[in-house]
Amino acid sequence: MTAPSAFDKLPPGDDLGLGLRSGARRWMNKDGSINVRRVGLPWFRPYELYHRLITMGGARFLALLFLGYLLTNLVFAGVYLAVGMEHFIRPGGSGFVDRLLDAFFFSAQTLTTVGYGHISPQSHLASAVAALESLLGLLSFALATGLLYGRFSRPHAQIRFSRHALVAPYRGGSGFMFRFVNKRSNQLIEVEATVVLSRLDPETGTRRFHTLALERSRINLFPANWTVVHPIDDASPLAGMDDAALRKINAEFIVLVKAFDDTFSQTIYQRTSYTAEEVLWGPPFTPMTRPAADGALELDIDLVDGVAG
Amino acid sequence: MTAPSAFDKLPPGDDLGLGLRSGARRWMNKDGSINVRRVGLPWFRPYELYHRLITMGGARFLALLFLGYLLTNLVFAGVYLAVGMEHFIRPGGSGFVDRLLDAFFFSAQTLTTVGYGHISPQSHLASAVAALESLLGLLSFALATGLLYGRFSRPHAQIRFSRHALVAPYRGGSGFMFRFVNKRSNQLIEVEATVVLSRLDPETGTRRFHTLALERSRINLFPANWTVVHPIDDASPLAGMDDAALRKINAEFIVLVKAFDDTFSQTIYQRTSYTAEEVLWGPPFTPMTRPAADGALELDIDLVDGVAG
Amino acid sequence: MTAPSAFDKLPPGDDLGLGLRSGARRWMNKDGSINVRRVGLPWFRPYELYHRLITMGGARFLALLFLGYLLTNLVFAGVYLAVGMEHFIRPGGSGFVDRLLDAFFFSAQTLTTVGYGHISPQSHLASAVAALESLLGLLSFALATGLLYGRFSRPHAQIRFSRHALVAPYRGGSGFMFRFVNKRSNQLIEVEATVVLSRLDPETGTRRFHTLALERSRINLFPANWTVVHPIDDASPLAGMDDAALRKINAEFIVLVKAFDDTFSQTIYQRTSYTAEEVLWGPPFTPMTRPAADGALELDIDLVDGVAG
Amino acid sequence: MTAPSAFDKLPPGDDLGLGLRSGARRWMNKDGSINVRRVGLPWFRPYELYHRLITMGGARFLALLFLGYLLTNLVFAGVYLAVGMEHFIRPGGSGFVDRLLDAFFFSAQTLTTVGYGHISPQSHLASAVAALESLLGLLSFALATGLLYGRFSRPHAQIRFSRHALVAPYRGGSGFMFRFVNKRSNQLIEVEATVVLSRLDPETGTRRFHTLALERSRINLFPANWTVVHPIDDASPLAGMDDAALRKINAEFIVLVKAFDDTFSQTIYQRTSYTAEEVLWGPPFTPMTRPAADGALELDIDLVDGVAG
Repeated sequence: MTAPSAFDKLPPGDDLGLGLRSGARRWMNKDGSINVRRVGLPWFRPYELYHRLITMGGARFLALLFLGYLLTNLVFAGVYLAVGMEHFIRPGGSGFVDRLLDAFFFSAQTLTTVGYGHISPQSHLASAVAALESLLGLLSFALATGLLYGRFSRPHAQIRFSRHALVAPYRGGSGFMFRFVNKRSNQLIEVEATVVLSRLDPETGTRRFHTLALERSRINLFPANWTVVHPIDDASPLAGMDDAALRKINAEFIVLVKAFDDTFSQTIYQRTSYTAEEVLWGPPFTPMTRPAADGALELDIDLVDGVAG
Repeated sequence: MTAPSAFDKLPPGDDLGLGLRSGARRWMNKDGSINVRRVGLPWFRPYELYHRLITMGGARFLALLFLGYLLTNLVFAGVYLAVGMEHFIRPGGSGFVDRLLDAFFFSAQTLTTVGYGHISPQSHLASAVAALESLLGLLSFALATGLLYGRFSRPHAQIRFSRHALVAPYRGGSGFMFRFVNKRSNQLIEVEATVVLSRLDPETGTRRFHTLALERSRINLFPANWTVVHPIDDASPLAGMDDAALRKINAEFIVLVKAFDDTFSQTIYQRTSYTAEEVLWGPPFTPMTRPAADGALELDIDLVDGVAG
Repeated sequence: MTAPSAFDKLPPGDDLGLGLRSGARRWMNKDGSINVRRVGLPWFRPYELYHRLITMGGARFLALLFLGYLLTNLVFAGVYLAVGMEHFIRPGGSGFVDRLLDAFFFSAQTLTTVGYGHISPQSHLASAVAALESLLGLLSFALATGLLYGRFSRPHAQIRFSRHALVAPYRGGSGFMFRFVNKRSNQLIEVEATVVLSRLDPETGTRRFHTLALERSRINLFPANWTVVHPIDDASPLAGMDDAALRKINAEFIVLVKAFDDTFSQTIYQRTSYTAEEVLWGPPFTPMTRPAADGALELDIDLVDGVAG
Repeated sequence: MTAPSAFDKLPPGDDLGLGLRSGARRWMNKDGSINVRRVGLPWFRPYELYHRLITMGGARFLALLFLGYLLTNLVFAGVYLAVGMEHFIRPGGSGFVDRLLDAFFFSAQTLTTVGYGHISPQSHLASAVAALESLLGLLSFALATGLLYGRFSRPHAQIRFSRHALVAPYRGGSGFMFRFVNKRSNQLIEVEATVVLSRLDPETGTRRFHTLALERSRINLFPANWTVVHPIDDASPLAGMDDAALRKINAEFIVLVKAFDDTFSQTIYQRTSYTAEEVLWGPPFTPMTRPAADGALELDIDLVDGVAG
């Protein structure tokens, strides 16, 4: 029922190389990143920089923009001071602070192309620096436009997973299950889930991977929450295990979710993992939906972690 | 013939949780949205805001832009008044209204970076506020650029479904059918349709889902209209049913259409549903195409609802 | 070998409705558009407008932009004249032409936000109109930015098909073949071709469609030209036919090509058709490639139509 | 195990036409481009220009932008001089250099819409040219915005292949192998590899292509490096060959890698090839990962070429 995964084809000792000597660490973090640090990269990597600028938090991004504006103006103010403020028509006084601030604000008026003109370059040298700065200003704001658009239009994490996975009663037997919900109001469709059990092989000290069969691995529409269930039958690698056994093998459940966001016509991937410590043994999840006073159905996002009892 | 769907795999009482106690409401609205309301979300959600800004109507969007412009200028006019208009070179009189309007229009000239200069900051304090405002102005218009582009380039609903579905004669027997048409002149290709019958299980009070087999579920080109037909043969869940029976089980036909818009290289999804009340029993659809005077074929979009008799 | 197509599933008299009474017209034009005209559409359709603006020729697009700029300035010049040019600080004379041109150029300086300031609004009324115009200016250029980006980043036709299809010798027998070439230097990959024979059914007067089996329907890399071949064996609907027979049934060969452009990460579709009149019976295509003086291989795009003899 | 490829369906002498008389040249270059030069193209190709502008190096792109700015200002300075600088309010002297530089800087202030106003058009003729230039300026910067966004958002090569392929011990026998690594920190997922052996047929002088079966052709996650292995068993076209034999048939291994970059929701393709001279016979690759002091796993990109012994 589960789509074929490369995980269960990994031979022991495969050179993905992860898991070696890492019994104490999780293979995948809760946010879906994997514990690998890249070294040997060049110092200046423009696309990594772009990547970081469109993925960082909004407040930090705005602070960076503001700092960049401040710094650029300071640099150009320095250049204008070096050129000499006598090269400018300007209203200000002759003290250093006055000259510095006039230079700074002339720079700001040039960089943003507001150009009131009450401060303006009088000599050709000053004009030349200003011509350069206004070009730089326009290109910077062209870049900012691209960054702002890139920030909003790129695929965003919008799935919230339950904090714990459960081993709970399921159809007469029991099942491994977790659930997730779309935090946003745009519709996700064609949602697919893959679950892989990763365990530590005590003999080789390496991690082994087993794809778990799911009761259902794909849904067409995703209006509310979805509880993904791996039935623990005789064929399951979890058959006969209990909490202690899971912890002993350093079990970690890798979760891959793929969906299509039809607002942006984009395929979205999101990942998470549950360690043995994050699996609760016992009661099932409690409902997340309830009928509202007006007859509509309400889905309470905050209930995603709710477990009975 | 129909692609496999997750609907028909849903076990009774599945925790999608929809349909419970909702016999009187439709599961999916005509516009394809589903009757679920999300609660427990944070107050400020920038991507939802973005989403709303690029999906709202054009007139409302422009009105919002205009209001935002007005408001920002009012706020900055207040700041300039607080700084004191004596910090500005300006032509206007000394009354409050004159000072306010000068402040307002200076703000507008700064925000848009038009910067005529006949009003200009005389003090460093005024210059500093103006430098901030022009930065804000450029970033706002960068955002507006992204929003305008996002509004036009995102996938758009362009399919118009017939208002009613029919149960009409089909190849000696009868068939459940509806039709749809591409309202726009860009070509849709690789169009796929899925139809799911949703019914209320009287015993459990929950909704059950059955994917209906289609005479044809995919077409390569979509130059005109497409009538999707589910032949009512012995294997059909509709076999032997009539209008009253459909209403009694609260039948609702969920329609999912997927297509590729090759102008924008985007996959487009559109959904709708027909309740039992929206199914007409009897005559078939009337043609939507007719030869024009010049020999070309005309497709009349307004005829999509046309039923014989 | 050919991927399944919806064409060969079309029953006779299907309500795609095309081909009826159209024996004299081709079903698909050379540029891949289909001879259907939509009527009943609303007068104002913003996305169609957008679509037309990003698909029209470059010269026409620039002319439209220039005209729009001219017209907007004329309209605002009219408004400023109505307000009265005495509301402006301005250098010009008092004659009508002088006032008109000052109004016009003030408008241009406001719309583009260049705002020199030698003409500037003196009254609050004039300032208000100018504030509105500069807002409009920024939004218009935001739109223009989006349009320019949309024009370049959308998928573009880059395949050039041979003018004629051939029925030529192929592996001891004969085959129906045509070829095409990538006109541009960006690489197309995973190229797929589908060929459908459309013929007029003399009894019903409708068009029937038959997908033709291809020697090869997909190539991974497309560095040069590709000759698509349908071997005319006993199973072929073309078996035993000659030029006259093809013309008699009003044969038309519909060609669908799909490819992936990895410069833009976009799937590209291109279509064309060959009528019976555009099929040459006899010799094969001549080569399009030749070794250059420096040992590289040259592909001459202009030779795509070359036929031996 | 390998996905079907068009390569192994190519009949001898196929009109892809490549490989003819090219025993001395490689079919595909290390960067994945193929040795075909297009001729017969029109002189002006806007989309090729766009393509080149978004794929060229960053320094060259910025230099071009700067040169374009300089040149445009020079051209307009010429026009303003032709109009006559007496049509301008301006501070400068009356010598030619003064007039030229005033014209140049007025142009720069107009093109960037900074418009200080200390130089401003006095006559209607000068105003008209300036109105045109400011329109051109805004459109140019709209284009630059699109180009900058296009440069960053397009799919980028981010895979680094090992410099050599190896024929090294593999599970008791031997295998043909190479490895690659994601140079960037954004996650690649659903990574697929295809390897095709191209050899020169001594009889016909043409190249033949054979897809090689891989131990594993797809991985879901790609956190570190991936060594792609073709086991040399009895079914392998490499069975029984040695270094000399590979060189004798002019062997070239074509490598196609496909992946999904979920930061940008884009499918990425990257290609390379290994000639017989680039295959080392003997020891295997050395590990690229090592545990860091803090317990994390470090992946050293520079070790991708590392071979034991």
